[in-house]
Amino acid sequence: MKLLEQRILQDGIVKEGNILKVDSFLNHQIDVKLMNEIGKELKNIFGHKPITKILTIEASGIAAAAIAAQYFDVPVLFAKKAKSQNLDGDLYTSVVRSFTYGKDYTITVSKKFLNENDHVLIIDDFLAVGSAMKGLIDVCDQAGATVEGIGIMVEKGFQEGGKYLREAGYDLHSMAIIEKMEGTTITFRQE
Amino acid sequence: MKLLEQRILQDGIVKEGNILKVDSFLNHQIDVKLMNEIGKELKNIFGHKPITKILTIEASGIAAAAIAAQYFDVPVLFAKKAKSQNLDGDLYTSVVRSFTYGKDYTITVSKKFLNENDHVLIIDDFLAVGSAMKGLIDVCDQAGATVEGIGIMVEKGFQEGGKYLREAGYDLHSMAIIEKMEGTTITFRQE
Repeated sequence: MKLLEQRILQDGIVKEGNILKVDSFLNHQIDVKLMNEIGKELKNIFGHKPITKILTIEASGIAAAAIAAQYFDVPVLFAKKAKSQNLDGDLYTSVVRSFTYGKDYTITVSKKFLNENDHVLIIDDFLAVGSAMKGLIDVCDQAGATVEGIGIMVEKGFQEGGKYLREAGYDLHSMAIIEKMEGTTITFRQE
Repeated sequence: MKLLEQRILQDGIVKEGNILKVDSFLNHQIDVKLMNEIGKELKNIFGHKPITKILTIEASGIAAAAIAAQYFDVPVLFAKKAKSQNLDGDLYTSVVRSFTYGKDYTITVSKKFLNENDHVLIIDDFLAVGSAMKGLIDVCDQAGATVEGIGIMVEKGFQEGGKYLREAGYDLHSMAIIEKMEGTTITFRQE
């Protein structure tokens, strides 16, 4: 999606260790107009599917998911990062490895809100190794829900998450795929 | 706001200890249509003010803030809950007491995104004792930004946060104010 690629080139900041900071428009401060354009694009891509729910994970996926949900006319459900070990029994849970913070955490989704009749579009801001995404898919599998598609704002194409998900057959679309970052130069994958 | 009050009566669940669960439409699963109506109402209330930014806090305030921001045509900024002690120097920070989890946490906002030229509308899902809200106001004060108003989805009117904020002169509007919860009976404050 050219609009997002241009914005990343304009306002993204490349930091040491293949880190891309997009906190001025995507995951700290949020450009809601840009999110609306992304929501429309996701509707173009996945609108022919019988989506019943949009699933994301707190915190930075929520804005994109909520804005996109307006175009699909379905509720948003966001997986929570568990804050205590005393989890309610009526939860789907999955353990996610965080490479940013170097530890595991547990995500939870209430069983009340996801079941075998759901056709889910999963939306998140970033895809790198795909740990969080595997957790969200695991939750859908536990619920017997169908993962109809995955919409990502920024995919780090040089990490393995996207390759894994596409080879596993998921209908994955990333609004921007970064092929490489060298110094401060960002190269996008051409599709 | 009648629409939200009706929804709370219909789908809210009162649990022991004055806990109101609204996770089916507000803070786990999100009814985006309801959020749109709330966004319009917030625009009616605060639209005459020179809002430049909507500030909220992760995670459950983000959806409401992002949807509302569309009506104000301004960016959303969400305060993060600090995950490490090693905080970047370019952050406003404030310590917030969580009564739910019985401990303090630190919220952070990048100095890049809030300054003395900003006129801020703060949006959050719940207001009870007001700890998180005081942290958000503290961040605005540090930045020299003007807090133009505070928009809350559900205020627990029997806790002191709302009273404190109104007496301190903040332009606080809550879409629903719960006066009391007895057993499973919810009574709203009439304004």
